[in-house]
Amino acid sequence: MKTAITPTRAENFSEWYQNLITAADLAENAPVRGCMTIKPYGWAIWELMRDELDKRIKAQGVQNAQFPLLIPINFFNKEAEHVAGFAKEAAVVTHYRLKAIDGVLQPDPDSKLTEPYIIRPTSETIIGDAMSRWVQSYRDLPLKLNQWVNVMRWEMRPRLFLRTSEFYWQEGHNAFATHEEANADARKMHKVYGDYMREVLSISSIMGEKTPEERFAGADHTYTLEHIMQDGKALQAGTSHDLGQHFSKSFGIQYLGTDGQLKHAWTTSWGVSTRMMGSLFMTHSDDDGLVLPPAVAPYQVVIIPITRDENADALNAYSEKLGEQLRDAGVRVLVDTSDMRAPDKMWKWIKRGVPLRVEIGAREMEENTVTITRRDLGKASKRTISDSELLSEVKNILKQIQQDMYDAVVERNKTMIHDVADLNELKVALENGRIGFFRIKNEQTQNEEFDGLMEKYKISRRCLDDNNPEYVYVAKSY
Amino acid sequence: MKTAITPTRAENFSEWYQNLITAADLAENAPVRGCMTIKPYGWAIWELMRDELDKRIKAQGVQNAQFPLLIPINFFNKEAEHVAGFAKEAAVVTHYRLKAIDGVLQPDPDSKLTEPYIIRPTSETIIGDAMSRWVQSYRDLPLKLNQWVNVMRWEMRPRLFLRTSEFYWQEGHNAFATHEEANADARKMHKVYGDYMREVLSISSIMGEKTPEERFAGADHTYTLEHIMQDGKALQAGTSHDLGQHFSKSFGIQYLGTDGQLKHAWTTSWGVSTRMMGSLFMTHSDDDGLVLPPAVAPYQVVIIPITRDENADALNAYSEKLGEQLRDAGVRVLVDTSDMRAPDKMWKWIKRGVPLRVEIGAREMEENTVTITRRDLGKASKRTISDSELLSEVKNILKQIQQDMYDAVVERNKTMIHDVADLNELKVALENGRIGFFRIKNEQTQNEEFDGLMEKYKISRRCLDDNNPEYVYVAKSY
Repeated sequence: MKTAITPTRAENFSEWYQNLITAADLAENAPVRGCMTIKPYGWAIWELMRDELDKRIKAQGVQNAQFPLLIPINFFNKEAEHVAGFAKEAAVVTHYRLKAIDGVLQPDPDSKLTEPYIIRPTSETIIGDAMSRWVQSYRDLPLKLNQWVNVMRWEMRPRLFLRTSEFYWQEGHNAFATHEEANADARKMHKVYGDYMREVLSISSIMGEKTPEERFAGADHTYTLEHIMQDGKALQAGTSHDLGQHFSKSFGIQYLGTDGQLKHAWTTSWGVSTRMMGSLFMTHSDDDGLVLPPAVAPYQVVIIPITRDENADALNAYSEKLGEQLRDAGVRVLVDTSDMRAPDKMWKWIKRGVPLRVEIGAREMEENTVTITRRDLGKASKRTISDSELLSEVKNILKQIQQDMYDAVVERNKTMIHDVADLNELKVALENGRIGFFRIKNEQTQNEEFDGLMEKYKISRRCLDDNNPEYVYVAKSY
Repeated sequence: MKTAITPTRAENFSEWYQNLITAADLAENAPVRGCMTIKPYGWAIWELMRDELDKRIKAQGVQNAQFPLLIPINFFNKEAEHVAGFAKEAAVVTHYRLKAIDGVLQPDPDSKLTEPYIIRPTSETIIGDAMSRWVQSYRDLPLKLNQWVNVMRWEMRPRLFLRTSEFYWQEGHNAFATHEEANADARKMHKVYGDYMREVLSISSIMGEKTPEERFAGADHTYTLEHIMQDGKALQAGTSHDLGQHFSKSFGIQYLGTDGQLKHAWTTSWGVSTRMMGSLFMTHSDDDGLVLPPAVAPYQVVIIPITRDENADALNAYSEKLGEQLRDAGVRVLVDTSDMRAPDKMWKWIKRGVPLRVEIGAREMEENTVTITRRDLGKASKRTISDSELLSEVKNILKQIQQDMYDAVVERNKTMIHDVADLNELKVALENGRIGFFRIKNEQTQNEEFDGLMEKYKISRRCLDDNNPEYVYVAKSY
């Protein structure tokens, strides 16, 4: 069977993903090393993802603010683990002026900065500095801040959405009077992300704590959300960190307690990024292109008039009118009256993952019916219903798609998680090319043999099993 | 009379502005040269400003996208006027890694970039490059793109919101088949900004074309919106540029016309930034602090229960209930049940410019009344009305405040614009310390004497008079 995307997932998952991004017109490589340009259709998806998550973050009592892009090196240097984690991928600003020298534009040597800046790879340091001024007494706590910004981590092997030098994210930074509150907050935001991914992205997350080896640079505890891609690899879609007093001690975030004593605060940070879009695309899409859950689809419904020369105007007008009625019902609708051929329009919107396709031909117009097809189920779901049924049912249909897509991921994940009793079983599974997550006792991995397997099969510890933290999930990852 | 902000505007406008920003908790200087940290209350205002403008931009058929932060120097170098305009304030990235050398963290010499990048001061170049790929045929035009991003122009004399090295803005970039369409678009977006500033920010703009001396680096025509501050100085609040074919020729934005010929497109760009917040604050505020138009006030109404020990719980609960009813009516409300003294609460929200203050004491609660005070009119507007009148009238009251604030600006502007017949009249006015905009025949300014006045009094040409382009507005500016 011919597919809209070649190669198919089964033939070459990695090339399929690349071609999917192009076919759905989501993004392209930028003429800046490791960076991407997010095209209008891709950015419209991100705006929907962002706005919904922003609401949920604000519902937690968090306030948005905006901190500088540049971070003085000496700030960055204050927390040893943190600097070790990020120094190797920092973009460094060293001059503040250009000058033509021998006809070539270059950094003006006279504008060299005494102290260089780095472009934020994350903002614990500069926000920690601000918190040291903003937090004075127990009355100022908890302090809950978030920002939606671009960050930069120099990337040698970039892949659109999954690993790019510049990416877009939200980073939340909260401060508390006690460790208990801070740890509860890190876990709470972890849960907020899990709920969001389930309800909005239709993705089921493996949620758990990172092992010490995989923790964020400067955290006491890192809670992660791991998604299982269709090729069985893990994608880390979000993390929430209990930072203990690492940053409050490095930056002097202190408060006067009710007892009159000066104490260091306890902080957390938590973030999700445009990487989550990579997960969204790789989780749901098929060999014909993107499949979007309705909650984040720029167009939830596309109406395609199947016109002939003699009825084009009437059919287009009829379709526009139906589109307007659907819009009034609160649905995001595109009526494609462009001058492409109808089959080309169909394939265009299949590739872009519009959840519900509505076709109207001469006969449908006459009979006041429409032919609808769900993107997630394809041809098998094609049926003809009355206009009035479409209007009254469209929201339920979209809700059903949202739920079915989630259920399908849950079902697939079940086939992707394998219990292994020991290293030998793990080894056999890997040798046989078994894909997915392997659940194993963590104590079984504390040896050189496991280190060897990690190296050989490019696997890593994804997280501990939340239900039984003696066990760890192991998988290849993006 | 004691004022909440000292010094007053009359005593020292510039210090008043600085203290206003602090008193309203809007922003602070960041520990990065020339940059600011926008605090939660300030950022909440920006989010409201941004969301409303974003809607209006999208209503023009513009799509949001996201382009890289970094621009290769060779891109930047392609348009000669453009590079001349921005090279002197460019932040330059020269390395991609840090390394501890002799114990000091510094740019790793082995990570030096063959070709440095600059942090975008604006994105005509990198978007021009993308357009050269995205535009192929007349069918791809018009192409209308916008992005909300941070940009950087190294600033030696920073001032919060008015001039900061990093600032936040939207930059729109449109491409057309003909010069006519492009010029009409530049004018159209100029008008969209003017309407937005009037309807949302309650600010009346002086709108007109920049003289050649003051054009954007690389534009054929620049249309500006100039605001008159209370000290008579101009603040350029937004610009829209007809870029002709400067960038389409530099970057090869070409399309195959209906006639089969390859032609260069015509482009525009248009932007407003967080600088507009500086105008918002300086235009409306008074000696007691910020005054916000309801459309961009994070809280449109603040309810302050005037509690005594014995009735605190009941009064707080009563106030919360009223707040909930106002929220149901679609109003942004804060009920301040914090443990500050009532007068302190009042002054806190006066300084932060909440448009309508609602006070409820024991007697009001008993009589089902509230005492309301408009921030823009102060004590004189204080009156007691029934709860039910507040609920039914609140939206009208807010609408009236929005309108009255605009009308007040229009009235004040009238006193700030002065016709001068010739250079001598201008000189006398400036010598006498007259503040405001001076309207003079542009031909009168084409000489060295005017250049001398510009230098001596730090005035500049703000824009041509839209109604009579023989005349130009001249003023000091921020």
